[in-house]
Amino acid sequence: MPLQDHHQIMSVDDHLIEHPRVWQDRLPAKWLSAAPKIIEDENRHHQWEFEGRLFPQIGLNAVAGKDPRDYGMEPVRYEDMIPGCYDAGARIQDMDLDGVHAAMCYPSFPGFAGRVFHQAADKDLAQLCVEAWNDFSTDEWAASAPGRLIPLAMVPLWDTALAVKEIQRTATKGARGITFPENPTPLGLPSFHTTHWDTVFSALEDAGMPLCLHFGSSSHVPGFADDAPWAVSISMYATNLMWTTSDLLFSGILQRHPRLKVVLAEGGIGWIPYVLERCDYTWERHRWYQDIDKNVRPSELFAKHFYGCFIDDDHGVTNREGIGIDRITFEVDYPHSDSNWPNTRKRAAEVFVDVPDEEVHKIVELNFRELFNVR
Amino acid sequence: MPLQDHHQIMSVDDHLIEHPRVWQDRLPAKWLSAAPKIIEDENRHHQWEFEGRLFPQIGLNAVAGKDPRDYGMEPVRYEDMIPGCYDAGARIQDMDLDGVHAAMCYPSFPGFAGRVFHQAADKDLAQLCVEAWNDFSTDEWAASAPGRLIPLAMVPLWDTALAVKEIQRTATKGARGITFPENPTPLGLPSFHTTHWDTVFSALEDAGMPLCLHFGSSSHVPGFADDAPWAVSISMYATNLMWTTSDLLFSGILQRHPRLKVVLAEGGIGWIPYVLERCDYTWERHRWYQDIDKNVRPSELFAKHFYGCFIDDDHGVTNREGIGIDRITFEVDYPHSDSNWPNTRKRAAEVFVDVPDEEVHKIVELNFRELFNVR
Repeated sequence: MPLQDHHQIMSVDDHLIEHPRVWQDRLPAKWLSAAPKIIEDENRHHQWEFEGRLFPQIGLNAVAGKDPRDYGMEPVRYEDMIPGCYDAGARIQDMDLDGVHAAMCYPSFPGFAGRVFHQAADKDLAQLCVEAWNDFSTDEWAASAPGRLIPLAMVPLWDTALAVKEIQRTATKGARGITFPENPTPLGLPSFHTTHWDTVFSALEDAGMPLCLHFGSSSHVPGFADDAPWAVSISMYATNLMWTTSDLLFSGILQRHPRLKVVLAEGGIGWIPYVLERCDYTWERHRWYQDIDKNVRPSELFAKHFYGCFIDDDHGVTNREGIGIDRITFEVDYPHSDSNWPNTRKRAAEVFVDVPDEEVHKIVELNFRELFNVR
Repeated sequence: MPLQDHHQIMSVDDHLIEHPRVWQDRLPAKWLSAAPKIIEDENRHHQWEFEGRLFPQIGLNAVAGKDPRDYGMEPVRYEDMIPGCYDAGARIQDMDLDGVHAAMCYPSFPGFAGRVFHQAADKDLAQLCVEAWNDFSTDEWAASAPGRLIPLAMVPLWDTALAVKEIQRTATKGARGITFPENPTPLGLPSFHTTHWDTVFSALEDAGMPLCLHFGSSSHVPGFADDAPWAVSISMYATNLMWTTSDLLFSGILQRHPRLKVVLAEGGIGWIPYVLERCDYTWERHRWYQDIDKNVRPSELFAKHFYGCFIDDDHGVTNREGIGIDRITFEVDYPHSDSNWPNTRKRAAEVFVDVPDEEVHKIVELNFRELFNVR
């Protein structure tokens, strides 16, 4: 029995679909007409409207429990989704059904790290929208099930001083992690090879909140060919996080921020031993003529700062020693298409069949508690 | 003794630096002034000149045997290189010193797959340049050491009818593989998701020559940030080949060309089990609503068509069963910075210490012989 009944599965990466009143309930009256709202399009599909742009609710965002033969990409109406997508009470019931104790939930319409608000024309409005999402995440969504829905927050990406304030404000309100673009450069922001983000990272260190990087959150779609079937990008999204891992390992950020923790969300873990070996090999041979740390191996930095996670990754689990048992967390990805819901616990029992109890306990629960300071 | 004395190391990926007369010796008199030539720049560095552009000899291309502390990026003169870079006789001596029996050598100045000639303004000239490189590769370089320097050829990328003819012509002359961009789209060419290349792939099948994809040959540089140290891109080049692997597995090409063999050159192998698991997972869940094969798993296609290779990849060797012993080949990468020359055989003995003899024999020698039909 490698997955024991008393092991509480805590998912570092689930998703919530914002209900129609998230912003309408929170923004000051003068901003309400400009705030994000749900409209019904000519096909009777629900879409978000914000600053004149429409944002479909993509079907793959809410297919948990469906037969893959019924997956599609078309936008949907709220009533086409299972209620656990947008209703916290229903979510807890779905987690109970799945044998999952706790979940950290990423935003949907704003992008996994608040890209939509970063791209807004009116930055005063955008700031209010960021704050409203965070208030919703902490005060409504997570507050409905303390210790089970663990609140995440986003930051205004366009202004590091505002981002620092929002980290401090949300930390006080109980947020446990900050979602941030897997990489800032595709959004036109300064790269990890500048000192631009240092105040943000220092604020995260002081707040004890990890930097949570969800694949796809930068808007970068991996792959060469625009005419490839979407399966190519789906299968390759982890390469975004490989690039970011190498960026951070060679950036100097981790040396300047010794307490910073980095979460690679939905990236899988099977690639990590290869990438660490490759980064070390590169460091061995190429550090002398470049502005990179001459003394600390990339794999040592990884072991100190990074956390990977997985839904279903046999190769990664088999090679867990090369990743670090303390570096691995678990995820459910409800309600997305990669999720095993409502069979997460059943599948986990299969995946962990050859793994010692204490290692399973760390991976599914204890590493999460340590990482996000949830006791 | 897992690496036995009678195991002949055959490298699927080495490099030659073209000597100054490769084109000057071969093009018709009226083209000689336009043909690639070596000039000496104001710093007394040697550079190639072609159609008014200058192409430096990058230092990292010729650092085999140097201490990494002396690596640099500056262009060099021929006399700064070890002669085995450009002299076939000296190359054989260096291979003997390294305990290496055979090597397939990629082009340098034209790019690993002839990118420079594809980008040429005068396509008649470019075609002559492609033919001249192939004649040099087969009739001069490889002919000087039959069975030890195994000839590779390039094709005119801008015209598939010409490419087919060049495949047939070079096959007759003894070429054993065709170097092709790891992905055509960064060069502005039709993607692997079109039927554009089908005649080329059919010609390769008929000639029994593998499609050899060297990382970097598409000109795509992996990584998000332009201001990253070069170590980031160096460590991440294999992600180009991951994308291409997924492209090909989901393209339908392998179903239309059941005898096509694909070589992933310099990509390492440690990532392969993760990528195959991930492609299968994607296929399981997402094949129904896309135009992809509904019956054959990506990992089955890989097992039938692909060959990986590695210089130094402990994780890959440990997980060789998940890649396929018959799918793995070995490389030296002489004279580049990743090479272990002159210690290839010594390092191989360490890498293979826990691998059964018959598996080592396949990886270092027999798979190469089968793949390239070298008996």
